[in-house]
Amino acid sequence: MLLKTTTLAAAMLIANSAFASDEPIKPIELPKNINSAQAKLGKKLYFDPRLSKSGFISCNSCHNLSMGGTDNLKTSIGHNWQQGPISAPTVLNSSMNVAQFWDGRAADLKAQAGGPIANPGEMAFTHELAVKVLESIPQYVDEFKKVFSKEQITIEEVTQAIAEFEKTLVTPNSRFDKWLKGEKTALNSEELEGYELFKNSGCVACHNGEAVGGTSFQKMGAVEPYKTKNPAEGLKGVTGKEEDRFKFKVPTLRNVELTYPYFHDGEAATLSEAVEIMGQIQLGKKFTAEETAKIVAFLKTLTGDQPSFAMPILPPSTDKTPRPEPFTK
Amino acid sequence: MLLKTTTLAAAMLIANSAFASDEPIKPIELPKNINSAQAKLGKKLYFDPRLSKSGFISCNSCHNLSMGGTDNLKTSIGHNWQQGPISAPTVLNSSMNVAQFWDGRAADLKAQAGGPIANPGEMAFTHELAVKVLESIPQYVDEFKKVFSKEQITIEEVTQAIAEFEKTLVTPNSRFDKWLKGEKTALNSEELEGYELFKNSGCVACHNGEAVGGTSFQKMGAVEPYKTKNPAEGLKGVTGKEEDRFKFKVPTLRNVELTYPYFHDGEAATLSEAVEIMGQIQLGKKFTAEETAKIVAFLKTLTGDQPSFAMPILPPSTDKTPRPEPFTK
Repeated sequence: MLLKTTTLAAAMLIANSAFASDEPIKPIELPKNINSAQAKLGKKLYFDPRLSKSGFISCNSCHNLSMGGTDNLKTSIGHNWQQGPISAPTVLNSSMNVAQFWDGRAADLKAQAGGPIANPGEMAFTHELAVKVLESIPQYVDEFKKVFSKEQITIEEVTQAIAEFEKTLVTPNSRFDKWLKGEKTALNSEELEGYELFKNSGCVACHNGEAVGGTSFQKMGAVEPYKTKNPAEGLKGVTGKEEDRFKFKVPTLRNVELTYPYFHDGEAATLSEAVEIMGQIQLGKKFTAEETAKIVAFLKTLTGDQPSFAMPILPPSTDKTPRPEPFTK
Repeated sequence: MLLKTTTLAAAMLIANSAFASDEPIKPIELPKNINSAQAKLGKKLYFDPRLSKSGFISCNSCHNLSMGGTDNLKTSIGHNWQQGPISAPTVLNSSMNVAQFWDGRAADLKAQAGGPIANPGEMAFTHELAVKVLESIPQYVDEFKKVFSKEQITIEEVTQAIAEFEKTLVTPNSRFDKWLKGEKTALNSEELEGYELFKNSGCVACHNGEAVGGTSFQKMGAVEPYKTKNPAEGLKGVTGKEEDRFKFKVPTLRNVELTYPYFHDGEAATLSEAVEIMGQIQLGKKFTAEETAKIVAFLKTLTGDQPSFAMPILPPSTDKTPRPEPFTK
């Protein structure tokens, strides 16, 4: 009898995995080949505001890991309270993106990590000064030496470590993933109907794969123009091609319940609003209130286990560490 | 033989504890009677920037638990990048303070916690709006109900929970405490000489007890006037008495290696500088470079175990949650 149950379970597992592989959304897998020493160092750097001119802004300021890996603001706050040009995308599952930033101007997480540090509107520092700060702190110097087997710290190692930490920030075990893996009771009927609508209406054409997005650039306003005061041009800014104007990287919908407000301009305050507008401008569909509610219910099942870890304790500055300059113009 | 060793150990323990109790500094004890449900809720609130107008500033922004419970800035950055009037004191071991803030204007941690939320130069919110935000988030509503057995959230429960969390932020097991408890090899000879100088020079008159400070108000510039451009008047602002001008709460020296820069105006960048100036203006002493180095070496033994805990995951806002207004004047 025990044998029979086991055989049945195995048969179900095969059936389920076949089932899961037919779906356009794939369960999140845990990251492989993480260099844990690099990731451990990267976690400190991710939380270290001394990589900014002010000593106040860290990666975690705008990609807050207590808040879905974003800041939940329309556009972010940078050095000297400057208003950012675009809404901060979530860092969660960002390793699955085809490229980084809304316009894809960074090829990968490592290339991305250096951007905000040196951006005058964000952390407003320079790579040279950031490295100088780290070099003045013996605990950092020792850890870089151990992790990278090199005498000198450069921005390469800094961004490599941050990127390695970011690769660990995946969110498995969402209710939807449990359902994908065969746990049929993980979703209720409203959520399942929402998923069917999501597939049948065409949302899934762009929002698919492990991250439910992040793998292509699409025009914001494919069917109907999107009206915004935000001047961002998207991919055109990178390629220079007119046809790429308003093409943005399709955002991941993983944890979308946590990553409000929505769109590159952050103008959609609620998930319902975002679904309605997407239906209209990308698919030429007017969802009923009931349909929208069902899709929203489905989307909320994409919230996975949030990264859980101890707050890093940062090594103290020394007498030689350049001091932050929050109020110097 | 075993018995004899045990008896000897016991005798040593008694000798050591007698020894420890003769010292003007006491080891940090773990906090007692913590309401852990309140503290758990308080941890979330401590990290929640939705208690600020901008949605960007939390308690942890200026009392950063990765950085000794402070922001390591001369004066803090508030809403709209306003420059704070005074240096943020550490939250670590702050439950041991006779009162809160440099001028003692809050009687305890609970009274303190409400201050920055409503201060237009800090979080720039109101207690009413903060409560409104929390009331719009079902997970918070449920948790408050469970923790406080009350239907309504008020600022009282908010500050009570934050204060309860802050009471857990103590830093035991510093090398100095180990030495106090009898582990003679915990300090080297330079550090011990530094401690002797610290006692014999009179530093210990104000910096004593469990927190090595925090228990009295003293005039900054007791012997020689302290020159500063900072207009803070200290205790006078609270009592109105001219004799209280420039009297500030003696800061704790626990974890002082981590809580740079020093003094209420943050003008002493390094620990050596702080020791030299204190000697001069409070004690009328000019420490030699060697003496200063010894005292600094001793002070660095006061760094204890930093609070270690998982980053809280904050419950998401809902469609009803008032949105942050970072760029509204």
